[in-house]
Amino acid sequence: MTDLPALLDHADSQLDASLAHLFELLRIPSISTDPAYAPECRRAAEWLAARLQALGFEASVRDTAGHPMVVGHHPGATEDAPHVLFYGHYDVQPVDPLDLWSRDPFDPSVADLDGNRKVITGRGSSDDKGQLMTFVEACAVYKAVRGALPCKVTILFEGEEESGSPSLKPFLEANAGELTADYALVCDTGMWDADTPAIAATLRGLVGEEFVVTAADRDLHSGMFGGAAANPIHIVADICAGLHDETGRVTLDGFYDGVEETPSNIKASWDKLGRDSASLLGEVGLSVPSGEKGRSILELTWARPTAEVNGITGGYTGQGFKTVIPGQASAKVSFRLVGQQDPAKIRESFRAYVRSKLPADCSVAFHEHGGSPAIHLSYDSPLLQKAQAALSDEWPKPAIVVGMGGSIPIVGDFQKLLGMESLLVGFGLSDDRIHSPNEKYELRSFHKGIRSWIRILAAL
Amino acid sequence: MTDLPALLDHADSQLDASLAHLFELLRIPSISTDPAYAPECRRAAEWLAARLQALGFEASVRDTAGHPMVVGHHPGATEDAPHVLFYGHYDVQPVDPLDLWSRDPFDPSVADLDGNRKVITGRGSSDDKGQLMTFVEACAVYKAVRGALPCKVTILFEGEEESGSPSLKPFLEANAGELTADYALVCDTGMWDADTPAIAATLRGLVGEEFVVTAADRDLHSGMFGGAAANPIHIVADICAGLHDETGRVTLDGFYDGVEETPSNIKASWDKLGRDSASLLGEVGLSVPSGEKGRSILELTWARPTAEVNGITGGYTGQGFKTVIPGQASAKVSFRLVGQQDPAKIRESFRAYVRSKLPADCSVAFHEHGGSPAIHLSYDSPLLQKAQAALSDEWPKPAIVVGMGGSIPIVGDFQKLLGMESLLVGFGLSDDRIHSPNEKYELRSFHKGIRSWIRILAAL
Repeated sequence: MTDLPALLDHADSQLDASLAHLFELLRIPSISTDPAYAPECRRAAEWLAARLQALGFEASVRDTAGHPMVVGHHPGATEDAPHVLFYGHYDVQPVDPLDLWSRDPFDPSVADLDGNRKVITGRGSSDDKGQLMTFVEACAVYKAVRGALPCKVTILFEGEEESGSPSLKPFLEANAGELTADYALVCDTGMWDADTPAIAATLRGLVGEEFVVTAADRDLHSGMFGGAAANPIHIVADICAGLHDETGRVTLDGFYDGVEETPSNIKASWDKLGRDSASLLGEVGLSVPSGEKGRSILELTWARPTAEVNGITGGYTGQGFKTVIPGQASAKVSFRLVGQQDPAKIRESFRAYVRSKLPADCSVAFHEHGGSPAIHLSYDSPLLQKAQAALSDEWPKPAIVVGMGGSIPIVGDFQKLLGMESLLVGFGLSDDRIHSPNEKYELRSFHKGIRSWIRILAAL
Repeated sequence: MTDLPALLDHADSQLDASLAHLFELLRIPSISTDPAYAPECRRAAEWLAARLQALGFEASVRDTAGHPMVVGHHPGATEDAPHVLFYGHYDVQPVDPLDLWSRDPFDPSVADLDGNRKVITGRGSSDDKGQLMTFVEACAVYKAVRGALPCKVTILFEGEEESGSPSLKPFLEANAGELTADYALVCDTGMWDADTPAIAATLRGLVGEEFVVTAADRDLHSGMFGGAAANPIHIVADICAGLHDETGRVTLDGFYDGVEETPSNIKASWDKLGRDSASLLGEVGLSVPSGEKGRSILELTWARPTAEVNGITGGYTGQGFKTVIPGQASAKVSFRLVGQQDPAKIRESFRAYVRSKLPADCSVAFHEHGGSPAIHLSYDSPLLQKAQAALSDEWPKPAIVVGMGGSIPIVGDFQKLLGMESLLVGFGLSDDRIHSPNEKYELRSFHKGIRSWIRILAAL
């Protein structure tokens, strides 16, 4: 790829034009949660379809039960070029409270921040219009310099990401053949820090489970029944307390089946990041890592499975005091999964554990609240390694492979419905104020984001 | 007391007149919680004062910040006769829902129940007008037959028992000299069964305590912080789960200091009552006794101390699911006390235990919700033994000494403010539907209640 310098030079010289395109998109108030803005969502979709068409894509606005999708297809330079699906979303969060914005959220600008950072201001500048446009403008550079794209590219832009993506799954199912590629590129995540790009290679899965323990068939007075009748709060507390042993490990039978140790080179790269428990926990007023002993804070949040009680309730919880022994108590428990942990087996193991703790005269009801396995790119996949090298060439510091503690539904859907792995690369910073007033995107993120995609597409 | 037969005969012959007096009182709708009935409460107080005056009491209606008290004094037959304070309350519960009553709640009647039981119907018939009038009419019999009472009698009737007795403590404190007697007689409890009278000799005390554990200074996302940040629900659950050991004993340091074993003859008398765990727990849909192993259900609820969690809350408890790690979680815990257990020491021991379970980066706040020691007549006190013998003479089966699982505030106040022990005797049955529509009082309870007080006063 001897023309890489030419491509990057062109990206530099065309930055103002790229920015002008982004500004056009940012001026469209495509707020998906407010039905009053439905025409604006469609307008954003139409703008994107037109932009893709201008780059030679066969692109169209596709109706759904909600806001439309934009789908575009572009052939690769050769028949055997890899096929990638790029995903982004054109809808944005509401802007209330408007008086906290220092400028009209839909009148984008380039502003100085702290005297030394140029930032693009406006709603959607980071989440996700600025991010998705890095890819579109990278395609534009290829078209301008080469007249062709190095890969076969399918693009999917969604307009409901900020309102729960109700149409996405049906759309993927109905158009699986059209949308399936070799892998997906998703640009909706962030950098490790301003100089260090990151690829999210693992996302923890989730099992959500609620259980309700019933003891007596009514609330009892603790004077009359205290010390004699089963107290369901004690039972629920005992169940919750018994989920972890003294070393912080989860006690459920078979819980660690399918959990793999993170490769030592990956762990070593995390250790070098200087993100220790003091810095992560210090931000929220804590200092002592809970959970499994002997593991770093990044390992705990990225690569280890957890059990957390997310809600518990029973008896009298208002002001003052009531000496009641309630008839029922309940808790909501979630498990974060990694590796090959099987959500169905974990749910069954949890239920068996709960039943084993139940006195003979009490009963339990379970309510399922979702289950999805962990998602992960193999650490030694060529896709990951090529992207990592390409990003490392662009940025001051080498790209790192990170985990994400939570799940991103689209990635699971690509895996499950289309059988595709996803490469998660993004250029947001943690201070971008997405979902908040005065959202911004670093001009450097936009510029080097375009250059990063040029390099990644070249590497693929 | 050779005139006892004459006294009892007179009680029998005057039953209709006694009943007529009770009906006059029952017709006054003295609902204390509803301000609209304040004049009726005063009318009930005035009626009682007049009735006592008719029996030779120096009696008056005494204003308080709320509904008035009635206080009456009658000298004994001799200077060295014992001095008793009799307590009852003239206020009644509201009557809603009125359409569930088969007769006007303030138009009392004698009705047939199940073909073989005569019952007095109406609000207050059992709680507490019918009960307190058994004592008043017993006094009337003494006056009619002997022209004198065998004891020096002070009577205190309250009008706020059903609305939390806000004026009682200040009134006892302000009139301690006037109200203090050798002991108190309280008629607001029930029989063991229709043939077996009961004296409540022990009342468990209570320590109420709420604790709030704070971990992070905000709610956290379990994807980002799960497995790393302290979860206050886990901490609260662990604290609650650790309150009992496997044998059901409470684990707090020094918790059993001052707990005495119930005398074996008392335990034996309880064992004979045929009240087993199956019958007590079966009523509320349970079957397995919780709490300390190896103790009868009556011992557990009357004579053993307990720890019960009465409320617990933390995290998301609404519909659905949120993967939150909350900043706070809390529980309300009560301890029922017996014997000489010291409420202050138990509270301190509990707080020390909670602090010992707290991670170094979490904090706890405690909120005190009342504390009172257990109340008990010595099982071999002459007062108890005389009353037990007198009741056993009156009823088909011998009187039994029982415990009460809960506290009765007035008894604690008499103990604490006036230094008086209380004898708790009453003739209600468990099916009297106090606080509910169609409240009733057995005509037999009223009749033999009057005769019982005649016997008890004679025995004292």
